[in-house]
Amino acid sequence: MTTQEILHAARQARPALRCADRAKKDAALLAMAGAMWEQRAQILEANAQDLEAARGRIGDVMLDRLALDEERIAGMAEGVRQVAALPDPVGQTLRTVERPNGLLIRKVSVPMGVVAIIYESRPNVTSDAAALALKSGNVCVLRGGKEAFRSANAIVAALRTGLERVELPRELVNLIQDTSRASAMELMTANGLVDLLIPRGGAGLIRACVENATVPCIETGTGICHVYVDGKANLEMALDIIGNAKTSRPSVCNAEEVCLVHSAVADKFLPMLKKRLVEDRAAAGQQTVELRLDKRAARIIDGIPAGEQDFDTEFLDYILAVGVVDSLEEAAAHISAHSTGHSDAIVTADADAAAYFTAMVDSAAVYWNASTRFTDGGEFGLGCEIGISTQRLHPRGPMGLEELCSYKYVISGNGQIR
Amino acid sequence: MTTQEILHAARQARPALRCADRAKKDAALLAMAGAMWEQRAQILEANAQDLEAARGRIGDVMLDRLALDEERIAGMAEGVRQVAALPDPVGQTLRTVERPNGLLIRKVSVPMGVVAIIYESRPNVTSDAAALALKSGNVCVLRGGKEAFRSANAIVAALRTGLERVELPRELVNLIQDTSRASAMELMTANGLVDLLIPRGGAGLIRACVENATVPCIETGTGICHVYVDGKANLEMALDIIGNAKTSRPSVCNAEEVCLVHSAVADKFLPMLKKRLVEDRAAAGQQTVELRLDKRAARIIDGIPAGEQDFDTEFLDYILAVGVVDSLEEAAAHISAHSTGHSDAIVTADADAAAYFTAMVDSAAVYWNASTRFTDGGEFGLGCEIGISTQRLHPRGPMGLEELCSYKYVISGNGQIR
Repeated sequence: MTTQEILHAARQARPALRCADRAKKDAALLAMAGAMWEQRAQILEANAQDLEAARGRIGDVMLDRLALDEERIAGMAEGVRQVAALPDPVGQTLRTVERPNGLLIRKVSVPMGVVAIIYESRPNVTSDAAALALKSGNVCVLRGGKEAFRSANAIVAALRTGLERVELPRELVNLIQDTSRASAMELMTANGLVDLLIPRGGAGLIRACVENATVPCIETGTGICHVYVDGKANLEMALDIIGNAKTSRPSVCNAEEVCLVHSAVADKFLPMLKKRLVEDRAAAGQQTVELRLDKRAARIIDGIPAGEQDFDTEFLDYILAVGVVDSLEEAAAHISAHSTGHSDAIVTADADAAAYFTAMVDSAAVYWNASTRFTDGGEFGLGCEIGISTQRLHPRGPMGLEELCSYKYVISGNGQIR
Repeated sequence: MTTQEILHAARQARPALRCADRAKKDAALLAMAGAMWEQRAQILEANAQDLEAARGRIGDVMLDRLALDEERIAGMAEGVRQVAALPDPVGQTLRTVERPNGLLIRKVSVPMGVVAIIYESRPNVTSDAAALALKSGNVCVLRGGKEAFRSANAIVAALRTGLERVELPRELVNLIQDTSRASAMELMTANGLVDLLIPRGGAGLIRACVENATVPCIETGTGICHVYVDGKANLEMALDIIGNAKTSRPSVCNAEEVCLVHSAVADKFLPMLKKRLVEDRAAAGQQTVELRLDKRAARIIDGIPAGEQDFDTEFLDYILAVGVVDSLEEAAAHISAHSTGHSDAIVTADADAAAYFTAMVDSAAVYWNASTRFTDGGEFGLGCEIGISTQRLHPRGPMGLEELCSYKYVISGNGQIR
């Protein structure tokens, strides 16, 4: 089917989920998980073909992301079952107002409609996204990367088997059959057919979506996250937080990229930081962190002088830009100017400083004495996550099931006119 | 100043409102209202120049919309004072979660940041929009139509006098000095400078924004609103509702454009409808409604045969498309296919039919036994309105102060790492 045909079929399928209650949706999810496991041989065969075609064309890290085995398929099925266990976000009464004229106005959560997701080569995104969309009452249109195309088709075939077993239309879960740029552009401009577009991937994909999408689109993911070590910080705590935020998983969007240190503690703290991120890690045989220092930091410790772009770069690597500031206000102003609005943290024992920082730093998540790595749907208690929005128009921050819903007003009267 | 200079100045001004509490913002609003009234002579002089320049180039209705007098300025000032009386939407704790690891996660309402509003020739929009933006903590960048440019400048000068009196920066309220299409395009693509774009105006403006905007943009306003008269409708109530929805103000977006009638009552109801909308109005000397009938309706009453586009047109005029359907399901399916998702209504005494209709019709506002004309911030109890969103990505429906806010997560810990 062409992309347009798939989009029209997806649109036609919407009413099936509008009537489905929680029991029906959960039954579908369990059937989808079961069918995925039953069809693991077909999925692994398709995945082997994907791997064969990709070998030599993508790096080892990417190949590992692409590769499936029985354990990973079991994990994907378990992920779908966990979504079934989450509460139903649809049909919740968010507010009720009775107006003086007797009109009863209820604000009720409803699905977005057709949600399109453009992603890259991880096969598990296919089942994760389909499960989250279904639970939130949305029809999903998935457009994965070409490296994982055969795997994604086999996974979607299994998910559709599950849908058929509970007598829901196959067209609730759709995979675009064209992995060229043209199909991504078609999704971005499918006004009237796509209600929400979520790009999941690198900065290039997200920029392309923001620049070209005429359908409502969520800007996700890019994180230039800061940790500011205040003059009144517990320095040991600051070390632990930065060690975690920078090195526990440098390739993710909630990892720290910039450390700002108050000048009152810089002489003491920066040597501690260098010991923790460079010397201790070298001694332990771990990958060391490359420190890129502004002029003031460079007077205190050794490191690479920071270049012009180093305070505006999402390194996603063992690299940390380090600067010295003279005040809380300067730190907040720097972060306002350079942050991508994802996650930023202050380490301080001073509650007033924390209150100022959390008020003035306008990022999706602002931390006081905790690691930026917690910005995540699971860690926030949402139970799941389809992405992290860095825009201000809702949703913002980690997106779980509720964030995949819209709302509508249902108004009951007895003949009121205006 | 150029548009870019204004946008950068607006961005710089944001922190002034992030720290402003309700008392400060309300004081500013009262000072703005006072200054507008004090500077009424300058505003009227500017308005006279606008009127002089526009005469002969725009129609009488538009000229009337453009014209100011003391009474209208007093009304505008009163509108600003009313916004001061509304609750502060910023800084509300929307949800609090304590996680098992001790992290306290608060979801808090915050301003969007810089809100750009593109509108047409009504001068009162200038002060209304500025007041709503300020109360919601947003810096506004206004771009009005060229016919009202001198008036808007005089109004903004007065509003800025008010801001200065309470020692807030003038740059919280900004007017773009270029009324060409180029400046509108600059706002639509000012990524990183504009956090939200709201177009207020005709279908052409809204389409241009949806197609060209790369900043987050709200699709507002277009309303092809339906009233469905069910087989179990109270027909007198249906007549009252349709009379109101179609004729009380045909030029607005929540006016009815399409009437669907169940075949079980069509023989009885359509002659009643024709009497109410055509014969009674003619007898009363009122503008009559032109009925555009599908084939089945045309077998029952006289009228103009509906053309291909008549069930997909926002007439904004004394014109009503009328069709006959055989079932509730057919009515809901027709509305799903043809509605713009603004406001749709069912008239029925059957609660099950109403429940089905309000579940299946996915519009921003779905009415049971009331007129579509109630879709309005004031009528919904929001106290005000800056527009009506017809998209599903939030906000949806009437936008008041809360809908001009985003949220962020403020997370407090004691050194948690992941």
